[in-house]
Amino acid sequence: MKDKILITTGDPNGIGAEITVKALNKLDLPVSDAAIVSNKAVIDFYGKLNKDYEIIEIPYEKNDILPGKVTAQAGEFSFQALKKACELKGRAIVTAPVAKNALHLAGHNFNGQTEILQKYLAHDGQLAEMLFVAGNFRVLLLTRHCALKDVKLTKDMVIEKVTNLREFFVEKLGIKEPKFALCGFNPHSGEDGILGTEEIEILRPAVEILRGRGIDITDPLPADTLFVNYFKDSYDCYIANYHDQGLIPIKTVAGSKTVNMTIGLDVIRTSPGHGTAFDIAGKNLADETGMVEAIKAVY
Amino acid sequence: MKDKILITTGDPNGIGAEITVKALNKLDLPVSDAAIVSNKAVIDFYGKLNKDYEIIEIPYEKNDILPGKVTAQAGEFSFQALKKACELKGRAIVTAPVAKNALHLAGHNFNGQTEILQKYLAHDGQLAEMLFVAGNFRVLLLTRHCALKDVKLTKDMVIEKVTNLREFFVEKLGIKEPKFALCGFNPHSGEDGILGTEEIEILRPAVEILRGRGIDITDPLPADTLFVNYFKDSYDCYIANYHDQGLIPIKTVAGSKTVNMTIGLDVIRTSPGHGTAFDIAGKNLADETGMVEAIKAVY
Repeated sequence: MKDKILITTGDPNGIGAEITVKALNKLDLPVSDAAIVSNKAVIDFYGKLNKDYEIIEIPYEKNDILPGKVTAQAGEFSFQALKKACELKGRAIVTAPVAKNALHLAGHNFNGQTEILQKYLAHDGQLAEMLFVAGNFRVLLLTRHCALKDVKLTKDMVIEKVTNLREFFVEKLGIKEPKFALCGFNPHSGEDGILGTEEIEILRPAVEILRGRGIDITDPLPADTLFVNYFKDSYDCYIANYHDQGLIPIKTVAGSKTVNMTIGLDVIRTSPGHGTAFDIAGKNLADETGMVEAIKAVY
Repeated sequence: MKDKILITTGDPNGIGAEITVKALNKLDLPVSDAAIVSNKAVIDFYGKLNKDYEIIEIPYEKNDILPGKVTAQAGEFSFQALKKACELKGRAIVTAPVAKNALHLAGHNFNGQTEILQKYLAHDGQLAEMLFVAGNFRVLLLTRHCALKDVKLTKDMVIEKVTNLREFFVEKLGIKEPKFALCGFNPHSGEDGILGTEEIEILRPAVEILRGRGIDITDPLPADTLFVNYFKDSYDCYIANYHDQGLIPIKTVAGSKTVNMTIGLDVIRTSPGHGTAFDIAGKNLADETGMVEAIKAVY
């Protein structure tokens, strides 16, 4: 099991099983390289696998397969499958999307899969962080889902996250001396304090300390022009201060090929960038691109 | 003069004259289509025009041409040339970059050229606004240069700016029924208030009123995925809430081909997206791409 990629199919009422089947059929991995943590009835309901991949069974009643519905049963299944994948670890975990409200109905009050992974697989007490990846274009978010007005950075937080990022690049991606580009918080990176002081008070002092640790990171640079050479591989990772600052550039150029990679865990985890798409569940309309890229990113 | 594009060369100690000469030589416009509001000595210092374009002379001493220097003389020249272009109007104005601190040294306390144009060319009392353009990919900023924490929208402001935007598209660009896409202010467009309330309190009420005026505009949509189809011409213009939200996507994909277009004036004005580049002034190292695109955008 240690050498296999473990794939969960997410909410059994969403598009997760369908895109898993489509992605595996398209990628044609050897059966020795992947296992699915799910339920045979769920998988068969949504598609037909070309190969006989190992299925690690999580109990689920066939009658509870209700495309598009938010149910406690589906939430419980989503949770148990992910927990099982955490226990088994594998060489990487790829997760299809779950529904947060179904998890909550089942009494699992997590904000998403990342928080569950954090509970069971945190590496060395680290916080799980979201890295977005499209080929060699990678973006780390320093903050995640919060109102724009509530985005708040501290020097210590920046230092910790970037230090962990370096460790991840060295140990998990095998990039020994990663180069990081840091976005300014404000437009024009604050223009020496005229347009905001986060660069002076937080980002630049953090950069000084990070450089003292041997980390290759730029000064905070104006974010509007920073991503223009993303295809040149000048930087191994861009570091964005808030959600839209980091996700706009990568999703604008990579679209549904953008993969969500969780770092700070004992194993690498990836997932497609989209959600459960309940509106098209069970209709064979789902696009497997995101799932294909999520598997490719760890293969 | 009414049929000519008027081109100012900006600060005489920056790269403005050099990129103007290079751009005109590359574009090879008929002499009847363009005039340069500048000074012959300044132009000759930085390059050699292939064609005999009309030069509308603004006084400047040859000895005051000091590449890379911030001077009151240069600021005065920058100001007088732009003012002259405003008086002459032409069919469009294209401006090479000026230095704000040189303007200030000369006693012209404007924040940039846009504010000068606003003073002399405001259309019907409108505020001048910045539209960024790369081919058919266009972005309007609802707010401009301020700290991220100080970004503040009001419903009336959104209504006014989008109404003026529509007028500009209809009257100046000849797009009779422009389609506008509105970015959410918060990540995921606020997720129904969980991640911020600007969408509920400001943007959606503004959209209702704008639609009542017959304007085709989307609900506020998650900005991270909104720009992904920019090349499909689905929308004539994207409307961004703040500087980086709008400039990151267009500059990431169009780079130095991004043109700054000022709207709300009696004539269209464009300029390249970059500054005076004093560090390379007079060295024949400047890239004219931005100036070429700025001229092409109005030709």
